[in-house]
Amino acid sequence: MINIIIHGCGGKMGQVVAEIVENDTACQVVAGIDPSMSEASFPVFPTPADCTVEADVIIDFSTAMAVPALLEFSKAKKIPVVVCTTALGDETTELMTETSHSVAVLKSANMSLGVNLLLELVQKAAQILHDANFDIEIVEKHHNQKIDAPSGTALALANAINEAMEQQFHYVYDRSQIREKREPKEIGIHAVRGGNIVGDHDVIFAGRDEVIELSHHATSREVFAVGAVKAAKYLAYKGPGLYSMKDVLA
Amino acid sequence: MINIIIHGCGGKMGQVVAEIVENDTACQVVAGIDPSMSEASFPVFPTPADCTVEADVIIDFSTAMAVPALLEFSKAKKIPVVVCTTALGDETTELMTETSHSVAVLKSANMSLGVNLLLELVQKAAQILHDANFDIEIVEKHHNQKIDAPSGTALALANAINEAMEQQFHYVYDRSQIREKREPKEIGIHAVRGGNIVGDHDVIFAGRDEVIELSHHATSREVFAVGAVKAAKYLAYKGPGLYSMKDVLA
Amino acid sequence: MINIIIHGCGGKMGQVVAEIVENDTACQVVAGIDPSMSEASFPVFPTPADCTVEADVIIDFSTAMAVPALLEFSKAKKIPVVVCTTALGDETTELMTETSHSVAVLKSANMSLGVNLLLELVQKAAQILHDANFDIEIVEKHHNQKIDAPSGTALALANAINEAMEQQFHYVYDRSQIREKREPKEIGIHAVRGGNIVGDHDVIFAGRDEVIELSHHATSREVFAVGAVKAAKYLAYKGPGLYSMKDVLA
Amino acid sequence: MINIIIHGCGGKMGQVVAEIVENDTACQVVAGIDPSMSEASFPVFPTPADCTVEADVIIDFSTAMAVPALLEFSKAKKIPVVVCTTALGDETTELMTETSHSVAVLKSANMSLGVNLLLELVQKAAQILHDANFDIEIVEKHHNQKIDAPSGTALALANAINEAMEQQFHYVYDRSQIREKREPKEIGIHAVRGGNIVGDHDVIFAGRDEVIELSHHATSREVFAVGAVKAAKYLAYKGPGLYSMKDVLA
Repeated sequence: MINIIIHGCGGKMGQVVAEIVENDTACQVVAGIDPSMSEASFPVFPTPADCTVEADVIIDFSTAMAVPALLEFSKAKKIPVVVCTTALGDETTELMTETSHSVAVLKSANMSLGVNLLLELVQKAAQILHDANFDIEIVEKHHNQKIDAPSGTALALANAINEAMEQQFHYVYDRSQIREKREPKEIGIHAVRGGNIVGDHDVIFAGRDEVIELSHHATSREVFAVGAVKAAKYLAYKGPGLYSMKDVLA
Repeated sequence: MINIIIHGCGGKMGQVVAEIVENDTACQVVAGIDPSMSEASFPVFPTPADCTVEADVIIDFSTAMAVPALLEFSKAKKIPVVVCTTALGDETTELMTETSHSVAVLKSANMSLGVNLLLELVQKAAQILHDANFDIEIVEKHHNQKIDAPSGTALALANAINEAMEQQFHYVYDRSQIREKREPKEIGIHAVRGGNIVGDHDVIFAGRDEVIELSHHATSREVFAVGAVKAAKYLAYKGPGLYSMKDVLA
Repeated sequence: MINIIIHGCGGKMGQVVAEIVENDTACQVVAGIDPSMSEASFPVFPTPADCTVEADVIIDFSTAMAVPALLEFSKAKKIPVVVCTTALGDETTELMTETSHSVAVLKSANMSLGVNLLLELVQKAAQILHDANFDIEIVEKHHNQKIDAPSGTALALANAINEAMEQQFHYVYDRSQIREKREPKEIGIHAVRGGNIVGDHDVIFAGRDEVIELSHHATSREVFAVGAVKAAKYLAYKGPGLYSMKDVLA
Repeated sequence: MINIIIHGCGGKMGQVVAEIVENDTACQVVAGIDPSMSEASFPVFPTPADCTVEADVIIDFSTAMAVPALLEFSKAKKIPVVVCTTALGDETTELMTETSHSVAVLKSANMSLGVNLLLELVQKAAQILHDANFDIEIVEKHHNQKIDAPSGTALALANAINEAMEQQFHYVYDRSQIREKREPKEIGIHAVRGGNIVGDHDVIFAGRDEVIELSHHATSREVFAVGAVKAAKYLAYKGPGLYSMKDVLA
């Protein structure tokens, strides 16, 4: 049984983590840390310094400001920590690296299990299929309030393919202004916007008479909590080091 | 039983028409016309002038040059004609209109039953959904040798929506160069290119927590033959006039 | 400007309705009725009897027990009412019919705009395509806690097709136990179960070398609120009668 | 440059192989073997015994009866051979194993590159996702003349998952006769039949708020030729042994 502390247990994501762990027979929440919460089915402490409970791993969904104190606690108690808080400053990022010399620390750009798996599968698929003249295209769909296009995840997927294939591809976002056949070294990236779509990504490998599609479809940000628990189960008992979701899926 | 003459019965599309009619208990091929073919399960004549067989309707999949003589035959014999040959010159197009004063003539930009149905369904969907703030996007997929983008059918779909909605939409082909929320009056049109995809069209209506998708997927040009037979069954016994696939689906 | 009263404004669905109306320039909430709520951006009354505000239409998302008093209010004030509360008893259903002799009343099995549109589009598609030998199949996807299969909506889609096609189809749920070609008069219905999928429905029309797919994808029950507002805008100023979503989409 | 002999170059698949190789700068056809063909852009011999041309690898798309003589030729000349002919008898299968002691021989149940890749990707996905409580379902679509259900490939996909996961899953083909929640150890397999669909396979991993779909879509049997050329390029210069498409993708 893996014992978990949730840092930021009072926030929306922290609550989702607690709910997921509750339904997982391989782990349990032994404590929470959150200044804005006092009651739960487990003991809750306002700050890491107050926490007297031992655990195998910490899951953090808090705020950038709260992370340094948590890293200190993690280092002092030698409890591995999965950091899911985003938009950390350079200083905290450096502190994370430093902490990882003493204890296991995991951090990824996107904690979704599905997206991280997709990043790996598209590399494998590209290596096999591109040599057989399959063309690669990416279609992503997001809500109509999103101002950037294509999505960071669509670019991450294209970059992952390029990384696995010696940077041979360039990206194409518009074909309406030219009258030319497609180049084999293109990756077309298409940004569909509409309604309140949370995030769909579809990587298309189109060959002679066959098409492979690898797709991810998210319906809420809660997917990050699922990935965090998976990461925590991986990180418990691991030695010092800086880990990522890539290690979890290895 | 509807009796059909196939003009251009020796060509690939003519042969597909014959095969479809053979499997349809409501109609039969009574004759073919083709200078390059002599044998079939029905009598074949080299030119319309040679054809002595009576029929209820003619299906034409020939060449632009052969169409004028066929229209003359159709007019003289008062046999309705479904013209599927494309790239007709202005002169032949005028002749077709003139012929339609004496006999039923049907011609459409795209003979595919599915695409013509989709053209109608998207109009209905747009009228219902746009008022409820659904956003409209079109994704089309074609082979990597296609030099134009977006496809003519994708534009026809967008235009059909615009026609039904008082021309309120403008088309957007690229979102990577701006950082702005989507406008409700956009129709995003995305041209995926890869492999030897024959032609996929997907019209997306994305609203609050629900998405409607209306899709057409073609795997060969033979779909035009299916539409032609459907059109022929509609046109038999019809009075003079210029018809289109829109009438067939009404 | 259409003035709306929300009955059950304190519930989750009532709150979503309020939010949707707020973003719609063609209508506004002038009052709410809910015993468990006292504050909102509009006046809130505990019961219909307390409500002194005039309006053009009422949207109801309350409980079966609260509906009779609302119908009485609707009838007395001559305000059309969209009843979205489900699992009404026979007595209340009868009262609804009786009320509809005095004022416009709207009720549907499924208030989702998208599903109601789909019900109509599949009828049109079936009428056009089945005659051209397209086969019809339905794939629905729902969460792993759902105990009935296929979904009520999948059956409603199949029934709508059958209603439009003279009841010629029978439904097939399993093909693994026989070794036979598909009958043209089958509608295959497939129930995919997994994760927490809210509800996907895909109606497939497969013909010779072309496939038409008409799909609906819901990501939350809030879609019912969107349909309710659409229905309310339709029902305001309508004369007495019993209406359904089918009328709204006509 | 890899030099290829096509055995069965006059058949439909042999011709497709020739066309694919022609467009591949890394290999070329140096000879064909076919009793029913005399002319091509390369020398053609009626039987293996007549063939005097040296090569790096042979691709075979012939008939079961012609394979033994080819294996003998392959062994004598020490030219690796990709055997794509299906429905080989036990005797020929044994001969193939025996031949593989002297020269490289490759044989797979399904030569499609895409399907073989999918077989591998679903194993990886299942290992990662099932532990995070993702449910697995398979939807396959084939033409209305297919008498078996589910397809062999759908079962191969399910079996591949089971093989990677210690045989923990059982297969479910129908949910309409019970009223029960889905078991985590089910793989639902759904056989859609309609039109002339060549073969679609969709493996769905549905979790909490995210769904991963891995899909293969074939539009003609020619996909086997693409896989054969890929296999040939792999097999050239390999030492004796019995290989499969799994090795090609490794």
